[in-house]
Amino acid sequence: MSDQLALNLIHRVNVGDSLTRSAARDAAATAVVEGDRRLSYAQFNRYVNRTAHALASAGIDVGDAVGLASGNSIEFLTVYYACAKLGAVCVPINLGWRADEVRHVLSDATVALFVVAEPLQEVLAEPAKSTATIELVVVIGEPTEWTGVRVTSFADFVADRSEDEPQRVVDDRAPLTYLYTSGTTSLPKGVVGNHTAVYLESMTMALEGQFRADDRFAAMMPMFHTAQLNCHCTSAIMVGATIHILPGFDAVVLLDLIERESITQVFGLPMMYRAMLDHESIERRDLSSLRRALYAMAPMPQDMLVKCIEVFDCGFYLLFGQTEMSPTATIFRPENQLTHPGAAGTPVVNVQVAIMSPDGDLLPSGSEGEIVYRGPHVMTEYLNNQAATDEAFRFGWFHSGDIGRFDDDGILWFTDRRKDVIKTGGENVSSLEVEKALYSAEPGAAEVVVVGLPHDHWSEAITAFVVARPGVVLDPELIRRSMREHIDAYKIPKAIVVVDMLPKTSTGKIQKNKVRDANSGLYR
Amino acid sequence: MSDQLALNLIHRVNVGDSLTRSAARDAAATAVVEGDRRLSYAQFNRYVNRTAHALASAGIDVGDAVGLASGNSIEFLTVYYACAKLGAVCVPINLGWRADEVRHVLSDATVALFVVAEPLQEVLAEPAKSTATIELVVVIGEPTEWTGVRVTSFADFVADRSEDEPQRVVDDRAPLTYLYTSGTTSLPKGVVGNHTAVYLESMTMALEGQFRADDRFAAMMPMFHTAQLNCHCTSAIMVGATIHILPGFDAVVLLDLIERESITQVFGLPMMYRAMLDHESIERRDLSSLRRALYAMAPMPQDMLVKCIEVFDCGFYLLFGQTEMSPTATIFRPENQLTHPGAAGTPVVNVQVAIMSPDGDLLPSGSEGEIVYRGPHVMTEYLNNQAATDEAFRFGWFHSGDIGRFDDDGILWFTDRRKDVIKTGGENVSSLEVEKALYSAEPGAAEVVVVGLPHDHWSEAITAFVVARPGVVLDPELIRRSMREHIDAYKIPKAIVVVDMLPKTSTGKIQKNKVRDANSGLYR
Repeated sequence: MSDQLALNLIHRVNVGDSLTRSAARDAAATAVVEGDRRLSYAQFNRYVNRTAHALASAGIDVGDAVGLASGNSIEFLTVYYACAKLGAVCVPINLGWRADEVRHVLSDATVALFVVAEPLQEVLAEPAKSTATIELVVVIGEPTEWTGVRVTSFADFVADRSEDEPQRVVDDRAPLTYLYTSGTTSLPKGVVGNHTAVYLESMTMALEGQFRADDRFAAMMPMFHTAQLNCHCTSAIMVGATIHILPGFDAVVLLDLIERESITQVFGLPMMYRAMLDHESIERRDLSSLRRALYAMAPMPQDMLVKCIEVFDCGFYLLFGQTEMSPTATIFRPENQLTHPGAAGTPVVNVQVAIMSPDGDLLPSGSEGEIVYRGPHVMTEYLNNQAATDEAFRFGWFHSGDIGRFDDDGILWFTDRRKDVIKTGGENVSSLEVEKALYSAEPGAAEVVVVGLPHDHWSEAITAFVVARPGVVLDPELIRRSMREHIDAYKIPKAIVVVDMLPKTSTGKIQKNKVRDANSGLYR
Repeated sequence: MSDQLALNLIHRVNVGDSLTRSAARDAAATAVVEGDRRLSYAQFNRYVNRTAHALASAGIDVGDAVGLASGNSIEFLTVYYACAKLGAVCVPINLGWRADEVRHVLSDATVALFVVAEPLQEVLAEPAKSTATIELVVVIGEPTEWTGVRVTSFADFVADRSEDEPQRVVDDRAPLTYLYTSGTTSLPKGVVGNHTAVYLESMTMALEGQFRADDRFAAMMPMFHTAQLNCHCTSAIMVGATIHILPGFDAVVLLDLIERESITQVFGLPMMYRAMLDHESIERRDLSSLRRALYAMAPMPQDMLVKCIEVFDCGFYLLFGQTEMSPTATIFRPENQLTHPGAAGTPVVNVQVAIMSPDGDLLPSGSEGEIVYRGPHVMTEYLNNQAATDEAFRFGWFHSGDIGRFDDDGILWFTDRRKDVIKTGGENVSSLEVEKALYSAEPGAAEVVVVGLPHDHWSEAITAFVVARPGVVLDPELIRRSMREHIDAYKIPKAIVVVDMLPKTSTGKIQKNKVRDANSGLYR
């Protein structure tokens, strides 16, 4: 062993090592459960090591990108941890993306090896084949679709590999993931996450959520999102807890799981808790095992939060952050949520939150400005996009794009959403992209503004306000149908409202805030 | 601001930033209390910033060493955090050292500025003046003793300084402390601690001890030791809790403080809990505020632990580690201590513990060997001592020097102490140093072996076994008195036992283990 490798193995901060350590601490404890499959920490760690050695044999070096397209599964986490141990970069594919978005991501990330779950082959074969850098496709299941590209099954790929810990020099700040996030441009930007950031995020959540080795987590939100992956799964692995993997959210499935497996920790969107509250069986359920319920994206309406605390009888923790923060920035604990309804909480230990003027001055409490962050959770950079990185990091702080203020109690309030992004059903959607698609779909639209409005199910519902060209009569349903050719279905506005005029500043800019405020009760 | 500085301030892992963040999160919360002085987080952080600017004005650059000789005080923590924010290295002076040890440390660490508490001037003036690298002495209180060296009072030093955050590029792995530790050689070795190691240690303890912002800590063990400093104080600051500073341990003072200030977290040696248990007032005390009691150095006798849990009515957590581990490696939680009396517990999240053969092979559970560690808590190196560093880091693991094994439950047992170090009353004492001093004090000693034996008060009591030269009659009390000229008082054996012969291996080496085992009941 070289001296450099020896020193690295002794000292480094590596997300993969947190699994190695949990397996060393309690080899027999259950790590992951998916349907009938249950792997102990020793078994899961060996599976990860075999996968790492397979990736290394396929030529994956430190810094090489591994694409990963899969629903929630043991193999998703296996590939993620194998990349971590190897110093490779894991690039999860959002299953809601269009083919051109997938193509952009595979190419922007220079993906060298692409792991694809069997049911996704049909959709992903074309973008994968057109990505010149991909040298091998590994199919979780049976390969079909793959003429003209090297392909193997995951089972064959990892067969007969060493179960020893892979040994490589991986820097504390080596990239761990490129997580692509929708922004104001039409194509996703690659957020470069690093080992130190995700490791500290995992410790933050373990600390703030009081995660323990005897906890049992339900993982139902998509693992390709930072929230499920790094708030919940990596923290659970760090403390040696059990992760019960679900393919997605279903109220009955989750309620059954909580009862059957005595789940202690859940993490969902407000709409998921709403669906469980509304389920006819809720009164008969035994939910006494729950210790913590985390939720994210948006505060719950107060009456719903009160009902949740009563029915689930555990602490509800609201998390705020964004992919660039790995992702947690603030947390709102149960004791204050009821006295400060609608607020965003207080910073977690690893994050400093401040309010900044457009000129870069930090503002006192009570003043409104852009929410900015510092701390080791902050992403390394946007991949291949120095301009966006410089813009985000100006004045020595990470710029969230959200507007807010601190009150005199030191609690943060979001007073305006990130200018152009709507948070709907767990996804970030660029309002500019929706506006562009609406203009394309309906030439009769003179002016369009798209905003997110509060909605019990969607958190924010995408809503368009449109002014017609003179003499044109607009049909909202027709516009919605026409938009299908221009944009993903989930980005189509839930409602299109035809109006005579839109509020504007003296310089002629449409005042989105005013549109939002005037229509905040549309879905209530 | 340079781009490099901006990126560093956004991303870095810095122990000083954890104070900055706690002050930003809750400025009005009480940070430190010493007698009648109470500083809020805002006040304490400003005091630290003023101190940092004063140090910078005195020429202290990134990597420069600041000596710190003080009992427990607000200023101790102030200087420590000021160094952290500046990227300077804090070098605490153990108040039990002889003048030649202090001189060695000041010179080995190339201390450039020396902060000395008023009552320590008389003892420390001579070694400080003879250290060529010291350019300025800062006295906490009134300077006296200092002819021929630049000197100022701490109050003058920090007066009229900026209260803004100091802004400097400090690497994640920049040295934060040189903590000198007694080893097998007669002079202490400098353990280079770094920001990432201490930051993660702080998170570990906050996580394992479930530290919260509303906790109130009693800090009574010496802050110049890593245990009080990094297990307890930096963790408390990280979560925004209150530290009540005591000059040392006194059963009545501590019991009064627990009642008066509703202390929730204490950390002490077994002998301190014993002294409180034995105090006549214990039955009348209201100790209901306590949430956690940490203890270190050695397991408590089982009956004492049972009594502690009953009387203090809170969880008792046994910590093991060493200065080189920043310091925590394993923790023993209340639920297992009673079923596994005498064991050392299980590894903390940031540490992997293994058992190694002399040839560098990792051994299975049940096998005895050297306890070795990996993880980001591990020190950077021994200062100016590549040979000792290489020795400690061989085979890609940090070698603790302790012998132990894992049982089938995954719980670690220490089966033999670090070969030549006795852990007594919170101090590490080299048995070789004591043996050398005994030989010097008593020329009539033919063979000497010094071991630590289990002792309720001292954890281990230094004990010497001596074989006389032919015809010589040894007087243990006389030897003890003579030793005072050769060694610090606390290193003199509690008992000297004259024996006819010592057990030896076939190669003639004295079998310390056998001496220890045969006499383990000497003080019981």
